Amino acid sequence: MSKWVEEELEPGLRVSYGLKEVLASTKSKWQHVDLVDLQPFGRVLMIDGLVQSCQSDEFVYHESLVHPAMLMHPNPKTVYIGGGGEGSTAREVLRHKSVEKCMMVDIDGDVVDFCRKFLPENTAAFADPRLELIIDDAKAVLENASGFDVIIMDLDDPLEGGPCYQLYSMEFYTMLKAKLNPGGIFVTQSGAAGIKMMEAVFTPVHSTVRHVFPAARAYNQAVYSFMDEWGWNLGFTDAAASKLLTPEEVDARIAERIVGELKFLDGEAYTGLMSLTKRHRQKLSAETRILSTEKGTFAAMHNQGLCVAPDAGPGHNQTTKQ
Amino acid sequence: MSKWVEEELEPGLRVSYGLKEVLASTKSKWQHVDLVDLQPFGRVLMIDGLVQSCQSDEFVYHESLVHPAMLMHPNPKTVYIGGGGEGSTAREVLRHKSVEKCMMVDIDGDVVDFCRKFLPENTAAFADPRLELIIDDAKAVLENASGFDVIIMDLDDPLEGGPCYQLYSMEFYTMLKAKLNPGGIFVTQSGAAGIKMMEAVFTPVHSTVRHVFPAARAYNQAVYSFMDEWGWNLGFTDAAASKLLTPEEVDARIAERIVGELKFLDGEAYTGLMSLTKRHRQKLSAETRILSTEKGTFAAMHNQGLCVAPDAGPGHNQTTKQ
Amino acid sequence: MSKWVEEELEPGLRVSYGLKEVLASTKSKWQHVDLVDLQPFGRVLMIDGLVQSCQSDEFVYHESLVHPAMLMHPNPKTVYIGGGGEGSTAREVLRHKSVEKCMMVDIDGDVVDFCRKFLPENTAAFADPRLELIIDDAKAVLENASGFDVIIMDLDDPLEGGPCYQLYSMEFYTMLKAKLNPGGIFVTQSGAAGIKMMEAVFTPVHSTVRHVFPAARAYNQAVYSFMDEWGWNLGFTDAAASKLLTPEEVDARIAERIVGELKFLDGEAYTGLMSLTKRHRQKLSAETRILSTEKGTFAAMHNQGLCVAPDAGPGHNQTTKQ
Amino acid sequence: MSKWVEEELEPGLRVSYGLKEVLASTKSKWQHVDLVDLQPFGRVLMIDGLVQSCQSDEFVYHESLVHPAMLMHPNPKTVYIGGGGEGSTAREVLRHKSVEKCMMVDIDGDVVDFCRKFLPENTAAFADPRLELIIDDAKAVLENASGFDVIIMDLDDPLEGGPCYQLYSMEFYTMLKAKLNPGGIFVTQSGAAGIKMMEAVFTPVHSTVRHVFPAARAYNQAVYSFMDEWGWNLGFTDAAASKLLTPEEVDARIAERIVGELKFLDGEAYTGLMSLTKRHRQKLSAETRILSTEKGTFAAMHNQGLCVAPDAGPGHNQTTKQ
Repeated sequence: MSKWVEEELEPGLRVSYGLKEVLASTKSKWQHVDLVDLQPFGRVLMIDGLVQSCQSDEFVYHESLVHPAMLMHPNPKTVYIGGGGEGSTAREVLRHKSVEKCMMVDIDGDVVDFCRKFLPENTAAFADPRLELIIDDAKAVLENASGFDVIIMDLDDPLEGGPCYQLYSMEFYTMLKAKLNPGGIFVTQSGAAGIKMMEAVFTPVHSTVRHVFPAARAYNQAVYSFMDEWGWNLGFTDAAASKLLTPEEVDARIAERIVGELKFLDGEAYTGLMSLTKRHRQKLSAETRILSTEKGTFAAMHNQGLCVAPDAGPGHNQTTKQ
Repeated sequence: MSKWVEEELEPGLRVSYGLKEVLASTKSKWQHVDLVDLQPFGRVLMIDGLVQSCQSDEFVYHESLVHPAMLMHPNPKTVYIGGGGEGSTAREVLRHKSVEKCMMVDIDGDVVDFCRKFLPENTAAFADPRLELIIDDAKAVLENASGFDVIIMDLDDPLEGGPCYQLYSMEFYTMLKAKLNPGGIFVTQSGAAGIKMMEAVFTPVHSTVRHVFPAARAYNQAVYSFMDEWGWNLGFTDAAASKLLTPEEVDARIAERIVGELKFLDGEAYTGLMSLTKRHRQKLSAETRILSTEKGTFAAMHNQGLCVAPDAGPGHNQTTKQ
Repeated sequence: MSKWVEEELEPGLRVSYGLKEVLASTKSKWQHVDLVDLQPFGRVLMIDGLVQSCQSDEFVYHESLVHPAMLMHPNPKTVYIGGGGEGSTAREVLRHKSVEKCMMVDIDGDVVDFCRKFLPENTAAFADPRLELIIDDAKAVLENASGFDVIIMDLDDPLEGGPCYQLYSMEFYTMLKAKLNPGGIFVTQSGAAGIKMMEAVFTPVHSTVRHVFPAARAYNQAVYSFMDEWGWNLGFTDAAASKLLTPEEVDARIAERIVGELKFLDGEAYTGLMSLTKRHRQKLSAETRILSTEKGTFAAMHNQGLCVAPDAGPGHNQTTKQ
Repeated sequence: MSKWVEEELEPGLRVSYGLKEVLASTKSKWQHVDLVDLQPFGRVLMIDGLVQSCQSDEFVYHESLVHPAMLMHPNPKTVYIGGGGEGSTAREVLRHKSVEKCMMVDIDGDVVDFCRKFLPENTAAFADPRLELIIDDAKAVLENASGFDVIIMDLDDPLEGGPCYQLYSMEFYTMLKAKLNPGGIFVTQSGAAGIKMMEAVFTPVHSTVRHVFPAARAYNQAVYSFMDEWGWNLGFTDAAASKLLTPEEVDARIAERIVGELKFLDGEAYTGLMSLTKRHRQKLSAETRILSTEKGTFAAMHNQGLCVAPDAGPGHNQTTKQ
């Protein structure tokens, strides 16, 4: 293997993937997008040189992101997806028979076009009449919308100076909460969530969701091609709705509501997702940082290029551009 | 960072760790052992160039290996450890107040001496009078012993030509089962157990344990420094004993039986360990390969560069399809 | 930089080049060809994953290969090029006003087409009416031709099992010598020629040329993108013609005979090329291996992973010690 | 090979060496020093993670640094070495029978002690009574000394913010010139000198030496373990002394004056060193930057972390700490 793709997972930890072929590439206004064939993972979507989604295990990430929220909701009809330009999140949402409308808002139309063209597994989703695809700012559109049963944020990590940090803040979550119908559920991808990296994004996002919503739940799952466990956070407008389903309830709801067969998630897998280790629960409950655009707490993500303390006083560490 | 340690996890997938310092090194008759300081993991024990155990997260592996079997047993007094030269497995076993005798058999006395000298966290365990440390072949010693409540195999993966393949076979497990007291429980480390690699070692070891014991359970857990989920398999001499404990039962038994505080495992973590994904359960139940020294079923593992038969005569090295 | 091209120069010595873009790729019957943009070198032709020719310094290699032989010849009119599919060797030959015919024979028509299409610097050469381009086996064509003033072999190294080993043998050179006009000069690329690697190809090719021709000269030059010195060997049908030119003679001949301006070679550079270090001259004069297709002397090069005999029967694959 | 040493030669160009063993390490006040066994080079001295000197080819560098100046001088009795803590430069100087005194001044006594202890090839040199070893600042000591026939600067490259930039300036060279006896010769190592990197250090040092001395000469030579050609610059207090020796003169002087046998340098090798390519001579003669501590021209070495334009006016780009 003479060509390689290299990622630095953290300082002093590099991963290299054999690059068999660059299948397609494009540059959008914001990002560089490659579709490549990597020896260990098969067909892979890379954005700005980072592995974004691998054909061989993207379903682990996307089923984990979408179905817990959708299944814990009694009857999700209207769904909002922020980001998700790849189309896989919409695909999983649209497998739910109850869904009548799925509004998906991604800022990068070129990435969406690229994925629509090159990812055949999402062709049907992009063509589904229930999908309302909008190329725009996910925050701006949501501010002018309402009435969602489930809101899903499928965004890049809140990197310092990156485009997404505002969409992980208590201000954004407060606005978002008001767009949910009674009983509505919110879920957001929340970065690496293994024993080493969880405090970069996973735990501060959790404490922020917990701060805004009556109830919150963090969960995680190993994703092979991400070389770590990954994390998600749920926010519930109704605290009672945060009660875990039993494996049997999950299996029954999947059978009843979802078209086709899931590859990864079922009742037992759901239980595994929701069962956190002692160390994870300790770190989550000890987390006090609340991400805020006002206090500039994102400047934040300094360690690992991520998150710092919340109580950095006014004027400190500001990266907020408001 | 100018010095690096590199591992190939699979063809086309390499990981590199910044090497801050080589703290100590030795060569035994069988292995090359280094104690190094790696930038992402801190102090690390490396054997033959592979990361074996990292101070920062070895407890995830060792608590997962030891405590499920020990806690599912009603009252483990006598324990046998095959391998485990590092001392951490014995350390976790000896935290159980019920334990009266822990026989640990590792073939490499130099590695044991090295770890005893350089790993302060295991000093107390090596000095515990309940520990009977024997430098010898784990199979030979077990053949001449008996009366164990729990047997723990903490060995290298069954690599082709490696020293350990015999200790993952149905013949060995059959002998081993007879060394357990009624109600006795067996557990073995079982290699990488993520969605990509699980069929190299994890699923065939499971089918082999399942073939020999009245009941078996596979479980897994992400281990950050192993860059994947890791797997273990339990064998129960009494099928009824394979019933999962509730999180509350686990927490109660930990409180009652274990000295000091675990870092990782508690009731909820145990539930997470035992909850496998749909994909994992499908692969485990579909696995038909039974590892056998006689039939040379280790050839089995050629794909992943794993396992072969010991003294493969004609007709050996076949993958068994039962 | 997230994409890299990696080469192993020798066991334990790897070089990695930042890969900015794959500009074009093709697969011929024999080889995989890429045109890439590498961060340190700019536009690069890669064959089978190895850096073949970099826009930024290919002229060092090609001027060194072509002009010493051409300038030492009093009046080269007919030239034969074996290999050289990239077109740069022909380009340099055709700059000599004296040249009336340049026959170039490369076996890989797809590579030639690829280079003609993507390397604008060689467009004029490919279109030159004096160039007779033949897609065929360089040995077979030469056997049926004759009357050359200069013969240039621009081939891959004689790798074990590779297509070119026969074209570095005393048998081939004996045939080739007969195709030269009186006073004719032969030159061949001869692999890495630095202090460490020179004995892999450079010195045995030299001893073979020396064995066949009345006089021979080895010379070398550092080529930045090859990460080492590179070597060439000259064979002279007339020993008197091997006398070095003075720098002034070289400069005068360049001025008189060559169209356009050379980038690298002039009288002083020629003197540098031909001045070998004490260590190099010791190794060259001590070299006794003669490469032969009959005696299988290519086995010779096993150490460096180089050369074997073609159809090695019993007794073949011996290193010749003459 | 699981351990590697990695160097970035320039952005996007990395080299990795298999690390067999760390033989010894120490930290001085200024530098981190390792003696390692690298697979491609054997025993290697590394300073701050960079390959400094390899047992397998350090003689190429040290013979090239020392002997041209020593041999071009009619009768060198007193020699000053700035830097050279490894001891190899002194070793080569002391092979000259004419030498009565060799003053060597290196600031890092710990490195000198380390090399004296671990490099047996330099033991005799360190014990030679003609050697006066001083641990101090090379500039400060030279300011208070005088009467040298040859002055040799064997220093790190003039990296921005590094300790050595002052020792490559016209001010330093002006002071130094006054310390030479009539007919005295100066030589300094001058960094990478291949076709790509020569303008970082090699050409601006040349123009600076040329500016200060009546005559100057640049020369270069490929050094395998440096992965490039390397460069040196000579300054002559007497322009007539800059005339090149013939190969025969060099061989005669070596035979007459030097104890033992050189491995690399002889008359023909000397001619090769001094014969520069057309491209090199063009770049050297076009170079107008004069390195100066006053004008802060070192801030200089911005490209590649090296050299900038000379006409950066007063107050610009200052890194000078005077």
